[in-house]
Amino acid sequence: MRSIDPTSEADDIGAFVPGQRFRIEGRAGGPLSGLTFAAKDLFDVAGHPTGGGNHDWAKTHPVPTRHAWAVQTLLDAGASLIGKTITDEISLGILGENPFDGTPVNPCAPGRVPGGSSSGSAAAVAAGICDTALGTDTGGSVRVPASFCGLYGIRPTHRRLDLSGMMSQAPTSDTTGWFARDAETFARVSAVMLGEAIPDELPNRLIVAIDAFAFADPETAAALEPLVARLGALLGEIRQEAMAPPGLAAWARAQRTIQPYEAWQTFQEWIDRANPRFAFQVARNLVLGGMMPASERAWAGLVREEARGRMRQLLSPGTILCLPTTPFPAPLRAQPLSGLDPLRDRITVLCAHGGLTGVPQVTIPGATVEGLPVGLSVLGARGSDATLIAVARAMAEG
Amino acid sequence: MRSIDPTSEADDIGAFVPGQRFRIEGRAGGPLSGLTFAAKDLFDVAGHPTGGGNHDWAKTHPVPTRHAWAVQTLLDAGASLIGKTITDEISLGILGENPFDGTPVNPCAPGRVPGGSSSGSAAAVAAGICDTALGTDTGGSVRVPASFCGLYGIRPTHRRLDLSGMMSQAPTSDTTGWFARDAETFARVSAVMLGEAIPDELPNRLIVAIDAFAFADPETAAALEPLVARLGALLGEIRQEAMAPPGLAAWARAQRTIQPYEAWQTFQEWIDRANPRFAFQVARNLVLGGMMPASERAWAGLVREEARGRMRQLLSPGTILCLPTTPFPAPLRAQPLSGLDPLRDRITVLCAHGGLTGVPQVTIPGATVEGLPVGLSVLGARGSDATLIAVARAMAEG
Repeated sequence: MRSIDPTSEADDIGAFVPGQRFRIEGRAGGPLSGLTFAAKDLFDVAGHPTGGGNHDWAKTHPVPTRHAWAVQTLLDAGASLIGKTITDEISLGILGENPFDGTPVNPCAPGRVPGGSSSGSAAAVAAGICDTALGTDTGGSVRVPASFCGLYGIRPTHRRLDLSGMMSQAPTSDTTGWFARDAETFARVSAVMLGEAIPDELPNRLIVAIDAFAFADPETAAALEPLVARLGALLGEIRQEAMAPPGLAAWARAQRTIQPYEAWQTFQEWIDRANPRFAFQVARNLVLGGMMPASERAWAGLVREEARGRMRQLLSPGTILCLPTTPFPAPLRAQPLSGLDPLRDRITVLCAHGGLTGVPQVTIPGATVEGLPVGLSVLGARGSDATLIAVARAMAEG
Repeated sequence: MRSIDPTSEADDIGAFVPGQRFRIEGRAGGPLSGLTFAAKDLFDVAGHPTGGGNHDWAKTHPVPTRHAWAVQTLLDAGASLIGKTITDEISLGILGENPFDGTPVNPCAPGRVPGGSSSGSAAAVAAGICDTALGTDTGGSVRVPASFCGLYGIRPTHRRLDLSGMMSQAPTSDTTGWFARDAETFARVSAVMLGEAIPDELPNRLIVAIDAFAFADPETAAALEPLVARLGALLGEIRQEAMAPPGLAAWARAQRTIQPYEAWQTFQEWIDRANPRFAFQVARNLVLGGMMPASERAWAGLVREEARGRMRQLLSPGTILCLPTTPFPAPLRAQPLSGLDPLRDRITVLCAHGGLTGVPQVTIPGATVEGLPVGLSVLGARGSDATLIAVARAMAEG
């Protein structure tokens, strides 16, 4: 990891939106006093434009006059905000390459993408520029950059947190998440964001999602084995089972029907009014999202119900499941679309269950493939967010 | 029309690509000595980037080292080049609104679009900044801005001119065209570009395309009536007949299958490599172009053959056809896509025969609807370009 002075205003990894490095002090005496954070450019910060990673979004929307709930919550808890970080355009991306604001350096894997869409937040935390950072996760946008940048990251239970002041993409999948470099900071921030103490008690049963491990690159699955063994030892009982009996690809197809269609619904009025500029790949997603046939959407809705039932059945109290966060570490930057499209497709196969079922997921660093970080994820029943944080903390202590 | 000093470097109508106003003197003593021209930013000018109306095109392509054929031809004939003009992105547009370089003012219809994609060339000539300007016409990109800006404009016989150094869009439809404010300049430039003297003899039969006049707004058809009457009187014999017996909409559907698919083929490799930024509407055209089913393309190819046969049958020697260049004058600027899409569709219905059949077409100014210009077009058999110029000149003299 590169060493960067966190008190410096310098941002030599390009994590921040140009011109959006500033400081808003947190409330004195709060539980997060002394910590610094950054906010992905999808979160409103009063007096600063919300850019959404697209130069035409800020031009066609008013500057916010109040902070997003997540920003206000961290400030109230004493953390100080140091700026707004680069995101994939309107959060429609999983790799973190942005032609408008630039692509942040991945401090743990130079020459590789940082992952997205919360690319700048992950890069800033990984580089030590701030202690934590807000991201959003609709289809993997916290989990993927956390995995690629060697960080802790959470996608909370869907609808658990207040998303006011956060730019929406696909409302039935959108969540607010956050990153940290170390488990202790991660737990402190999580207790504030979740409004719940992180428990000492751990779950006692671990399911290893064999379908997800089989889908990952063999090198990645092998690299995660020691973490899985440690997790099993911590929890006691361990068993192997498929997470998605109809196939991870079927779940991913359903999510990739629901999410792009919702994204089109979200942005349609703006697009009609402003004819905004997008990178081709983003515009293509929107066009195809708008073309989803009703029959496909109806099928996807049923798959979603079935997947939610599967999660309820699998994740009984005291049980958590683990899987590789991403099927491989960060790909090389600046590849052609034809090289990246199949990689994107594979990443979303391991992330789709999040938006599809709404269960919380925490990704834990600690493994590498040829020196490149890759994360192990734990997920549990809806509402078990704090328990997953406890697991991450226990793994670090172990 | 606004009065602008043609010797000034000022460009207060935003017709030129920012930073691309310069001067290259024409050869002394040529037939176009004393004239000035501008080149649409799809034509190579040695030492100047070819922007193509898209900020990522120039970044990903080398600066040309030689002039396009059309630029060299005008310079050799003595005209001086004064700069490069704004185009719709990669010539995929018919209205002239460009979010990267800006939308040129329509000097004859302030508050209205200039028409595109040769928007800056038309605006510069209409404003009197230069005497003539190069454009390209694949699906109407000279004819439409000429109509909207009150200019003479030509789409020559397809494959007649050398297109080297001109950015391609859809090769089986691409042509190089040009504009002028007055018939005499138009004839001088045309003689050079066509390499053929403009004849004195006129055709002797006029077909009035009743399907095209019926498709135009009634106000536009009525405004063109005096021009049609004058044309009929010049030529002698006049008859009414449908240009496209299967329907103009069927021809347009075929052209709008062939052209976007070819455009996708043309730009596919670049898009894959560079993931360039586009206005949403342009990206949408490319995405949909790439998705054209083979069955639709096969049908379109047969319609094209049939349409070419129809033109051969209709346009016997001595016969020309006239139609409204556009179904209405220039629409208002900055409308939402949902307002512009139906207008675009209607404009292409009156332009599709050009790319579909390859016959030459000249648009002649002289009519207005509520003060806004609209052009009357004449078209003839392949190779009859000079005869059409002669008709335009005779109309002005008449």
